[in-house]
Amino acid sequence: MRRHVTFVMVCALLVAAGSAVGQTREEGPWWPHPQWGPEDQAGASNWITPDKVLSAVQLVTTGRIYELGQVYERGMPIFGDRTYSLLIPGGPTYDVPMGTNRLIGNDEFVCGEIGQIGTQFDGLAHIGMRMTMADGSTRDVYYNGFTGDEILGTYGMRELGIEKIKPIVTRGILIDIAGFKNVGRLPNGYEVTVADVRGALKKQGVAEDSLRPGDALLFRYGWSSLWQEPDAYNDSPAGIGLEVARWIAERQATMIGSDSWTSEVVPNPDPDLVFPVHQELLVKHGIFNLENLTLEELAADGVYEFLFVFSPVPYKGATGSPGRPIAIR
Amino acid sequence: MRRHVTFVMVCALLVAAGSAVGQTREEGPWWPHPQWGPEDQAGASNWITPDKVLSAVQLVTTGRIYELGQVYERGMPIFGDRTYSLLIPGGPTYDVPMGTNRLIGNDEFVCGEIGQIGTQFDGLAHIGMRMTMADGSTRDVYYNGFTGDEILGTYGMRELGIEKIKPIVTRGILIDIAGFKNVGRLPNGYEVTVADVRGALKKQGVAEDSLRPGDALLFRYGWSSLWQEPDAYNDSPAGIGLEVARWIAERQATMIGSDSWTSEVVPNPDPDLVFPVHQELLVKHGIFNLENLTLEELAADGVYEFLFVFSPVPYKGATGSPGRPIAIR
Amino acid sequence: MRRHVTFVMVCALLVAAGSAVGQTREEGPWWPHPQWGPEDQAGASNWITPDKVLSAVQLVTTGRIYELGQVYERGMPIFGDRTYSLLIPGGPTYDVPMGTNRLIGNDEFVCGEIGQIGTQFDGLAHIGMRMTMADGSTRDVYYNGFTGDEILGTYGMRELGIEKIKPIVTRGILIDIAGFKNVGRLPNGYEVTVADVRGALKKQGVAEDSLRPGDALLFRYGWSSLWQEPDAYNDSPAGIGLEVARWIAERQATMIGSDSWTSEVVPNPDPDLVFPVHQELLVKHGIFNLENLTLEELAADGVYEFLFVFSPVPYKGATGSPGRPIAIR
Amino acid sequence: MRRHVTFVMVCALLVAAGSAVGQTREEGPWWPHPQWGPEDQAGASNWITPDKVLSAVQLVTTGRIYELGQVYERGMPIFGDRTYSLLIPGGPTYDVPMGTNRLIGNDEFVCGEIGQIGTQFDGLAHIGMRMTMADGSTRDVYYNGFTGDEILGTYGMRELGIEKIKPIVTRGILIDIAGFKNVGRLPNGYEVTVADVRGALKKQGVAEDSLRPGDALLFRYGWSSLWQEPDAYNDSPAGIGLEVARWIAERQATMIGSDSWTSEVVPNPDPDLVFPVHQELLVKHGIFNLENLTLEELAADGVYEFLFVFSPVPYKGATGSPGRPIAIR
Repeated sequence: MRRHVTFVMVCALLVAAGSAVGQTREEGPWWPHPQWGPEDQAGASNWITPDKVLSAVQLVTTGRIYELGQVYERGMPIFGDRTYSLLIPGGPTYDVPMGTNRLIGNDEFVCGEIGQIGTQFDGLAHIGMRMTMADGSTRDVYYNGFTGDEILGTYGMRELGIEKIKPIVTRGILIDIAGFKNVGRLPNGYEVTVADVRGALKKQGVAEDSLRPGDALLFRYGWSSLWQEPDAYNDSPAGIGLEVARWIAERQATMIGSDSWTSEVVPNPDPDLVFPVHQELLVKHGIFNLENLTLEELAADGVYEFLFVFSPVPYKGATGSPGRPIAIR
Repeated sequence: MRRHVTFVMVCALLVAAGSAVGQTREEGPWWPHPQWGPEDQAGASNWITPDKVLSAVQLVTTGRIYELGQVYERGMPIFGDRTYSLLIPGGPTYDVPMGTNRLIGNDEFVCGEIGQIGTQFDGLAHIGMRMTMADGSTRDVYYNGFTGDEILGTYGMRELGIEKIKPIVTRGILIDIAGFKNVGRLPNGYEVTVADVRGALKKQGVAEDSLRPGDALLFRYGWSSLWQEPDAYNDSPAGIGLEVARWIAERQATMIGSDSWTSEVVPNPDPDLVFPVHQELLVKHGIFNLENLTLEELAADGVYEFLFVFSPVPYKGATGSPGRPIAIR
Repeated sequence: MRRHVTFVMVCALLVAAGSAVGQTREEGPWWPHPQWGPEDQAGASNWITPDKVLSAVQLVTTGRIYELGQVYERGMPIFGDRTYSLLIPGGPTYDVPMGTNRLIGNDEFVCGEIGQIGTQFDGLAHIGMRMTMADGSTRDVYYNGFTGDEILGTYGMRELGIEKIKPIVTRGILIDIAGFKNVGRLPNGYEVTVADVRGALKKQGVAEDSLRPGDALLFRYGWSSLWQEPDAYNDSPAGIGLEVARWIAERQATMIGSDSWTSEVVPNPDPDLVFPVHQELLVKHGIFNLENLTLEELAADGVYEFLFVFSPVPYKGATGSPGRPIAIR
Repeated sequence: MRRHVTFVMVCALLVAAGSAVGQTREEGPWWPHPQWGPEDQAGASNWITPDKVLSAVQLVTTGRIYELGQVYERGMPIFGDRTYSLLIPGGPTYDVPMGTNRLIGNDEFVCGEIGQIGTQFDGLAHIGMRMTMADGSTRDVYYNGFTGDEILGTYGMRELGIEKIKPIVTRGILIDIAGFKNVGRLPNGYEVTVADVRGALKKQGVAEDSLRPGDALLFRYGWSSLWQEPDAYNDSPAGIGLEVARWIAERQATMIGSDSWTSEVVPNPDPDLVFPVHQELLVKHGIFNLENLTLEELAADGVYEFLFVFSPVPYKGATGSPGRPIAIR
């Protein structure tokens, strides 16, 4: 109770979204987290309880697996100046046979922004907000009020690392916006509305009030059709905006996913806002965002509800994770 | 049928395990694969059919998830001269707030042998055998008769890459050898026998004849107790040898796993053999090997049969995969 | 003239070394640089004029080259958590012969903090000072008053990068402190004094007043005798302190060098100071620091004055440079 | 003497350039090296004797330094699928002030084929030839008869690494082919002839018979004018062919250099040959090749003879070196 009062007081003191007066991590406009408390670093993966898992598993009726991730390779769309390079070391370690069984072998060497390349799961240290405090100083704030000073490490984030997220095994819902709109791909820069979401759910026969905390909501924009054309893929994707983000947060999803590189509309229709959905979901609610999916097979088969599994690779202190998400119906 | 005759003929021509006369990938001592044909690159992940998935899902009764992977971090045990380095880029891309929403963020940059570090899933391009042909020439041969010439690429294996493996969603069986032996950890260099495996299964109440093609068999040696002591961890682990490997192949497992860095006994009791189990399973049967697990919780809870999920990260042309395997009971 | 007045005024306003009131890069306690002006980014490499080069070349009397750098290799002493990994890519790009001339080849792949590993030349973006301004805010200040905001880039420093430094071709002076002290290696944590420097010069027959602006001063502590013992090498090296640093700055050296990883005594005898010599030389005077040299051959041959050449590798936006410095007598 | 007889015999047994019968490194068509013996790994850097250095230094008359290297940066022309990525680590190691002197700092992290990116010095392990032996087997042969088996290492070449090359301090000669032809840039695919070389030398007033063993010969094709256009730069550069390569070898140069990415014409006018000049110079004669220079200032000033300095960075086991070559007149 006291927490809520503090929350209101703090909010009253805020001049704008970009300012805050919270002096400690314990009390601020979006922290401590109302359900998981001030020390929580697992965010909305906390929804993945045994009961949630158990009920999600019941969705499996045929055993068919759908792969939702893209293959990682040179030439795939990459954001900004990130790097992805994979090569095969040579030399005697791999090429000189060992034993009478004449064993040889190979490894691979990779360098790159491993959790922010290709199909990627944004963790809680990936996005924050710089807040201006009452005294004019600034503070970088992340999920649950963790500050930049607390979390940033040179060789890995000291807090909010991806290794603290629980494996995601839950009910997945495909929300096929492109299908609802009867287009192969949404127009560039189109902001998906709550009306669109509701229309898609209705068309799919999924009742909005059947959504439950901890569900994974996967949005199909038809954007993966551009995957082989990196420049076009990266250019002004359609996606959800703050309206849908708030609808998602109210439904207490564990995560969202989409077939674009950001899941949200870019640029935002409000030219003052940059990736506000990332902030709304990750920072304020601990709701994860799995980007660069391919949802074509699910859509083609009309698979709208399924067991969804994504197990983030626990690179200590990473801000995100690669992986290979799957749906099982 | 013709294939079998050829197989016998070829074998008859073999002088030793290290020689072969097969002139094409189509015919050789272990290729083409009797079930999956000459073009198969998915190996024993082919066992993961919808029926297999569906039956494995039935094993979930409580929804509890067990994490079986280790966290990736500097200082963890690493084999040989491999590298693992993760760092957080700084600078304005991450530190200059964007928009009135004042968005900031972080990435991570990793370099290393990404699929052969920490918890690692050995794929089909990881291990091969150099065979001496009848004409005295040599050939590097991998799963299903693929040759080194066919598969090796500088910037990723051209064939047998990890991206060709199907996600593993199957029945998992813990085979707790350390538990059977009533030790915290098996002795260094101990070769686990088929009698040990049978003893463990019996003690666990798992009938040997209940094992089915496509099961994932996870061996617990108690070795993860050394995870914090890299030198001790890497030194002469206990593990299975060729006897158990052949037993595994007969049972047509989709993969094995263990809590050591190799799953097999090192050094092999036969001093002429180097990692022969890797060869027996990966090269001859396409059976995968997931190393550096932690199986303590499963053992402590007596969870011997479960839904097992591991979805290899599809780095195109990689020889292995990192990840976070889970068991769900 | 006006600049000097400003300088005095600004200094008078400073409460301590860690505070400043300079509001712009143009005026501050050590900026703009009195000789090279507010836009200079070459620091003390500006001393390397044609006249300086011409006179240095006259020092060559025998043509013998002395190598002063260490070989870069795995296992060499490395500071902190930096990485150095070199491997040889394999595969058909390198292994499949091309043409009837049957050309094959090899490359190498490196990852690491390339300008701050092994023999390393510290550039002007490597070290700065966080100053507290009159209004209580802080500012990161580097050589010539460049601020952190101005210079920091995610994919390379935007200003003060190593590519802006002129090649160093100058008169080199060996100052053999270990030789003067008649020890193989100075004691751990020993601070070299100006008296030591004068004693060494005198013993070597180099008149102190023969030192000229733009000379490169190389200090021998005997520390490279520990190069094969990384832990001992990294532990509390002897070196110069602020007294000698100021003497160096007065002599307007272009750079210093030494056979330790820092050139300065660590820890500093004043426990409140951390690497103050780096700051004194690099930040305040733009005098470079070339670490991890080996000066044994020069000392053994009594070569105290020579043509010195070091040409920093121009990695755009790097903070330092690897290389292979040489002395020619 | 015996060596020479063997050499003749071996040559007589050669069917073609691509075959050999030499059974040991001691005797083969181009090994052991006639001057430097069977164990030599320094190649034509052996010409850099004190006498050579001493005479080269005499060429300095004004002290002016010319920079001949390109800056390394993202977006520069890169050959094939190589990688170059530089980033600045962030986090508290660099951003939390230390001491009352409030020291802060920065490093850089690089990954890439460090000796084969940008201005690059090809070493002796970079290029070899696959020879077919009398018994039909093949052997990879490098400078001085070193074989692939001897030199290749997974974490660095075991022999012929760049660290074995002596620093190059010698007489440099600019051979301005574009200037001789009165063009800004030679035509694509143009093979420079010995007549061109003689014409250029004559025009420059450099007598051909003034060339001496150990000189560094730098060819200007005008190709650096395309440096900002990577695709055009990489496309079919003009350059020398085997005729000039043999002329260079006869003159016993220590190295060549040029303002293209290969120094030799690509494609070779003989479509059966791939990079034959690399092989002729590096493999057969140990003559180095410094690529991606900029020679515009030398040409503009008519500086044809100068002190040339390039000191390869001694990355143990590397095949090449980055650096910043300079000319001093």
